[in-house]
Amino acid sequence: MPYVNIKITREGATKEQKAELIEGATRLLADVLGKNPQTTVVVIEEVDTDNWGIGGESVTVLRQQNG
Amino acid sequence: MPYVNIKITREGATKEQKAELIEGATRLLADVLGKNPQTTVVVIEEVDTDNWGIGGESVTVLRQQNG
Amino acid sequence: MPYVNIKITREGATKEQKAELIEGATRLLADVLGKNPQTTVVVIEEVDTDNWGIGGESVTVLRQQNG
Amino acid sequence: MPYVNIKITREGATKEQKAELIEGATRLLADVLGKNPQTTVVVIEEVDTDNWGIGGESVTVLRQQNG
Amino acid sequence: MPYVNIKITREGATKEQKAELIEGATRLLADVLGKNPQTTVVVIEEVDTDNWGIGGESVTVLRQQNG
Amino acid sequence: MPYVNIKITREGATKEQKAELIEGATRLLADVLGKNPQTTVVVIEEVDTDNWGIGGESVTVLRQQNG
Repeated sequence: MPYVNIKITREGATKEQKAELIEGATRLLADVLGKNPQTTVVVIEEVDTDNWGIGGESVTVLRQQNG
Repeated sequence: MPYVNIKITREGATKEQKAELIEGATRLLADVLGKNPQTTVVVIEEVDTDNWGIGGESVTVLRQQNG
Repeated sequence: MPYVNIKITREGATKEQKAELIEGATRLLADVLGKNPQTTVVVIEEVDTDNWGIGGESVTVLRQQNG
Repeated sequence: MPYVNIKITREGATKEQKAELIEGATRLLADVLGKNPQTTVVVIEEVDTDNWGIGGESVTVLRQQNG
Repeated sequence: MPYVNIKITREGATKEQKAELIEGATRLLADVLGKNPQTTVVVIEEVDTDNWGIGGESVTVLRQQNG
Repeated sequence: MPYVNIKITREGATKEQKAELIEGATRLLADVLGKNPQTTVVVIEEVDTDNWGIGGESVTVLRQQNG
């Protein structure tokens, strides 16, 4: 019954990609620790690039610098 | 001063239902552990059904299968 | 399939009290939102009083001031 | 490589204020613990006032009472 | 720069298994969303079975019933 | 009434350093957003280096490589 929380920036992940994350994370816990997939919960949270920082700068600013 | 985080799928919980969750969780901590309600914080997070998985499938897909 | 995370200071909550929190939180989600208790997950995290702050002070210090 | 999660009510924090939170939290970890700013991650989550409770009441209601 | 938080019950996961979870979750985000592995953070939290509930019961009790 | 969660690796942060993190994070929210320090909650979580990964490797391994 693991709980996996995946936080990513909101930059257009599709419904299909999210389904792959859910399936992949569930399989990972089953493969590595033998956890029952039926009770593994995966929650994906998408965060605006203004609200995500690394290295002291928002991702919004980092994307502009790399643009 | 407990902190309670409730994550649910975004499927139309009303303002009144959220108020009941806040009140009920606060009372639970007071009843069971004697925690001061004044400093109990409750945060409800609603997650799109595409972003919530159980059993390796998104809730969006599960709802369709059960529809 | 809600997920409830309860954070409290580590100050001697018993196994019985934790069981009451799990049962009460699960019932709350069933009563208010009709959520299936079988897939409601509750995770309790106990945090050292040195590691919990409110009002800019650790709970360790606050407990001493109120002692 | 610390991870800092800041949850606030969604009440109009600007892009500039969020940038200050990111920069300030990153600096705090560097100043106090010598953590490398390059790998410090800060995630800000804004929560509707209906979904945030303290003292058993939602912030929506508290704001009206204090209005 | 995703952040992945994996919560599992504390039931003897080894250092090697945790390394596999870290590597697998990082690869999953790279494969599905093209995320740079260098800035993907994975945090595993192990929770006592008394502190984890599903179906309104602690995992401690569930393990005894299934024992 | 912000909630700040700081996750760091468990590598000997002292009680005094934790108090500085609590005070600094509380002041940051007051300075930037005018939040009332009395209801700002800060929770510090220390995570074993085996349980923290970046770049697909645990911090335990990274520390050895850099040793």
